[in-house]
Amino acid sequence: MFKIGVLASGGGTNLQAVIDAVKSGVIKGEIVSVLSNNKSAYALERARVNGIEAVNIGRKQFSGISEYSKALASHFLERETDLIVLAGFMVILGEDFIKPFRNKIINIHPSLIPSFCGQGFYGLKVHEAVLKSGVKVTGATVHFVDENADTGPIILQKAVDVKDYDTPEILQKRVMEEAEWKILPEAIRLISQNELVIKDNIVRRKK
Amino acid sequence: MFKIGVLASGGGTNLQAVIDAVKSGVIKGEIVSVLSNNKSAYALERARVNGIEAVNIGRKQFSGISEYSKALASHFLERETDLIVLAGFMVILGEDFIKPFRNKIINIHPSLIPSFCGQGFYGLKVHEAVLKSGVKVTGATVHFVDENADTGPIILQKAVDVKDYDTPEILQKRVMEEAEWKILPEAIRLISQNELVIKDNIVRRKK
Repeated sequence: MFKIGVLASGGGTNLQAVIDAVKSGVIKGEIVSVLSNNKSAYALERARVNGIEAVNIGRKQFSGISEYSKALASHFLERETDLIVLAGFMVILGEDFIKPFRNKIINIHPSLIPSFCGQGFYGLKVHEAVLKSGVKVTGATVHFVDENADTGPIILQKAVDVKDYDTPEILQKRVMEEAEWKILPEAIRLISQNELVIKDNIVRRKK
Repeated sequence: MFKIGVLASGGGTNLQAVIDAVKSGVIKGEIVSVLSNNKSAYALERARVNGIEAVNIGRKQFSGISEYSKALASHFLERETDLIVLAGFMVILGEDFIKPFRNKIINIHPSLIPSFCGQGFYGLKVHEAVLKSGVKVTGATVHFVDENADTGPIILQKAVDVKDYDTPEILQKRVMEEAEWKILPEAIRLISQNELVIKDNIVRRKK
C-alpha cells in the first residue's frame, strides 16, 4: 500500500481533497499520519473524524529548525511513508527533513510559479499580490520540494481566471476550488502509480 | 472611425488576426497604417494585399532611439491614430514615442506576465525559457505600454498548457493559436468601444 503523510497548519481543505480522493479510490493509497505544528489546526480534526492518526508536534519545544526537521523526518520514516504532502504547512523545514525524502515531498502553492512565490508569499498574501499586480490569470502549482522555497520541479499547474472586483478572499476560494483541490490529488495519484520521471529538473509523464 | 496603427518586425501573424477581426466586423475600426523597421517583414506584404498603407522606416537612418521614436510618433500623430498595436515589433521605443500616446499603445507578449518577460525575453527565447523551467502552464498577455519593458497595465491574459516533449516551435505555435490571436483582437475591440478603465495600474471593464 502506498503510504501518504500530510503536514498542515490550518483548516486542511487540501487535506480533505486528498482524503476524498483516497476514499473514492482515485488514489490507491493510505494516509498514515497527519501532522501539524498547530494543535488547534482543523486539519487534525479532519484526520480524527476520518480515522487517521492526528499528531501535533509544536515547533517551540525544539531548540532549532534542524532539530524540529529531524523529529518530523523520524516520525514519517518510522511510518515508512512513501510520499509527504505539504498541504498548507507554515513552517519552512530544513535539509534534515528534505534529504531523507528526496523527491518524496510535494507542496501545493496557490499561484502559477514562477509568479508570486518565494519568501513572504503564502496564504492570502499571494492573492493580495496577484490582485495588486493586475494580472488576469493566476492558478496553483504542485511541485516537488527541494532546499529552496517554491523552486523544486513542477508536477502540475492549473490556471484560474482573476475577475474584476475580486477580493483576496474570493480569489483564494476560486483558486482552491478550481485548481488546488483538483491538482493535488491528481499529483499524488500520478506519483503513487509511478507515472512520472524527473530529468533536468523537469517532470514528465512516462512515455 | 476608430483608427488603428500597427508596428511589426516579422511575419505579422498577429497583424493578420487584427485584419481578420476588422474585416469580420468584430473590431469596428480601420487599420490606417502598418509600419516596420524591417523592409522585408512579411507584415508589410499582408498590409499591402489588404489595401492598408505599408511603410518601412528603418532604425539605422536615425542618429538615436530618441530621433527614431519621434519620427514614428509623428507618423501616427499625422494619421490621427487612436491606438497603436505593437505586434511583434523588435525595437524598444523611447519616451518620445510613448508620451504622445499615453495609454494608447498596446503590446502582445507570449507569456503570462510577470513570468518570462522583460529584457531578453522575446520570440522563441520566451518559449525556450518556459520549457527549460518546467512550468506546465504558459500563455499570452496584452498590456498597455509604459516606459519599461513589459510592465504596463495588463488588459487580457490567456493560459495555454505546456505539454510533455514540446519544442519551443510547437509551443510558440500553440500560444499564438490558442491565446495571442484571440486576446489581441479582443483587447482592441474593448478599447475601441471604450469599455475599459485604468485605475492604480489595473485595467477593468466599466461597470
